[in-house]
Amino acid sequence: MKNIALILSYDGTKYHGWQTQTNAISIQQTLTDAINKLLKCNTYVSGVGRTDAGVHARKYVANFKAQTTIPTERLPLALNTLLPDDITVFFAKEVDENFDSRFCCIKKEYAYYIYSSDINEPFLLNRAYRTTYKLDIDKMKQASRFFVGSHDFSAFRAVGTPTRSAIRNIYSCDVDYLTDFNFSFSFKNQGIIRIRVCGDGFLYNMVRIIAGTIMYVGNGKIEPYEIEHILKLKNRSNAGPTLPPYGLYMNRLWYKELSDFCLEL
Amino acid sequence: MKNIALILSYDGTKYHGWQTQTNAISIQQTLTDAINKLLKCNTYVSGVGRTDAGVHARKYVANFKAQTTIPTERLPLALNTLLPDDITVFFAKEVDENFDSRFCCIKKEYAYYIYSSDINEPFLLNRAYRTTYKLDIDKMKQASRFFVGSHDFSAFRAVGTPTRSAIRNIYSCDVDYLTDFNFSFSFKNQGIIRIRVCGDGFLYNMVRIIAGTIMYVGNGKIEPYEIEHILKLKNRSNAGPTLPPYGLYMNRLWYKELSDFCLEL
Repeated sequence: MKNIALILSYDGTKYHGWQTQTNAISIQQTLTDAINKLLKCNTYVSGVGRTDAGVHARKYVANFKAQTTIPTERLPLALNTLLPDDITVFFAKEVDENFDSRFCCIKKEYAYYIYSSDINEPFLLNRAYRTTYKLDIDKMKQASRFFVGSHDFSAFRAVGTPTRSAIRNIYSCDVDYLTDFNFSFSFKNQGIIRIRVCGDGFLYNMVRIIAGTIMYVGNGKIEPYEIEHILKLKNRSNAGPTLPPYGLYMNRLWYKELSDFCLEL
Repeated sequence: MKNIALILSYDGTKYHGWQTQTNAISIQQTLTDAINKLLKCNTYVSGVGRTDAGVHARKYVANFKAQTTIPTERLPLALNTLLPDDITVFFAKEVDENFDSRFCCIKKEYAYYIYSSDINEPFLLNRAYRTTYKLDIDKMKQASRFFVGSHDFSAFRAVGTPTRSAIRNIYSCDVDYLTDFNFSFSFKNQGIIRIRVCGDGFLYNMVRIIAGTIMYVGNGKIEPYEIEHILKLKNRSNAGPTLPPYGLYMNRLWYKELSDFCLEL
């Protein structure tokens, strides 16, 4: 029995998230079907974490156990012939039997993309969130620093989720303004804002609420220093809105076992 | 009666090209419907040129005549509320009654995007052409220079198109390798090749055949110096393949009347 780790990427637009569910197409089920068909098995595919409907993954790690004589390095091409074009397997590696894509992940990073414009960009449809407000990038950068460290993120989780510990370690939180987007943008004078949050784990909707709160700092509704206070009060209603799923990407992942696979780029 | 020029952008994936036709959704008809609904009129919308099904436009110019009291600068936002999200009107300007988006266009540029990979990139689906061949960018750059100037492009037109003059002036033809695509690319070590062709006019499929021929130079099937010979022989079968429509973009346009609208960016 081999334990095989896969690195994939997907455009989540047409899927109801990672997790298999009845009456909806998921990434997990689509990938499981392809593996079971190729290897004539009936395996369970485990993933690094759930992603919501419409959320994308630039990098995603999954693993499964199966008996197969197909060389592991040939699995990506073979699986891609069975997968739809919006899900791609880039690498496969045989790993130790105890490897689990969820529990072996040391840290992970999400990216959220926002652009500020009166007018919708056709090539960013389902790929980034548009706001009509002008955004102050410097203030957003200032705000992002308050999220770094070990905090109780109760104010930054979806209301009504189970009340286990809300303490998470955020290793970095960065706001960048990217302008070299002449492929995606119809008018070159615009740029896109990327918010990246890297941590050991995330609460439900946490990154989308952090992004919404940083956006509220950008448009002046919240001052950067208020973030500290919002964290302390632990009340969801003080934070900004939950931004929509289509601007969110699982961006980078860190694993001891997969350090040779450029997951950190 | 006002003559109004519009600058728009569209993702052509879901459309059967610019031109109105029976039993298929076109950009022209979708735009015409929005204008007629907004202005309660029954106008004809003229465009800078036809684009095939699946071809995109980073910039596109159209014009129409109508009586309206709506200030011209408000038309983009009003039209965008009636248009689907994959077609966006960026600017509107009242122009001289003789202005015609097709005949007043001084020159236009198309861009074709190709990437070389064994594996499909989910975020470039319907946006760029993938080849599994390794491509020699320097040779492609050398080949591109032979297209510049006034030539008979009979070898670079779809077979069976009407036999009027095939002489066209190409002002520039450039091949660039773009690497700053971490938004579109799952793995950062890859880049994308952009072929841009700027001219006074184009024959049917001309840019897609030029791109296919430059790609054949990149993978070694044709030597750069052979382009001169292929042009002279005027035989379609000597040139490279017609690449698919989804890698092609109407990219930049030049108009005396619209020089203040950043169409050249």
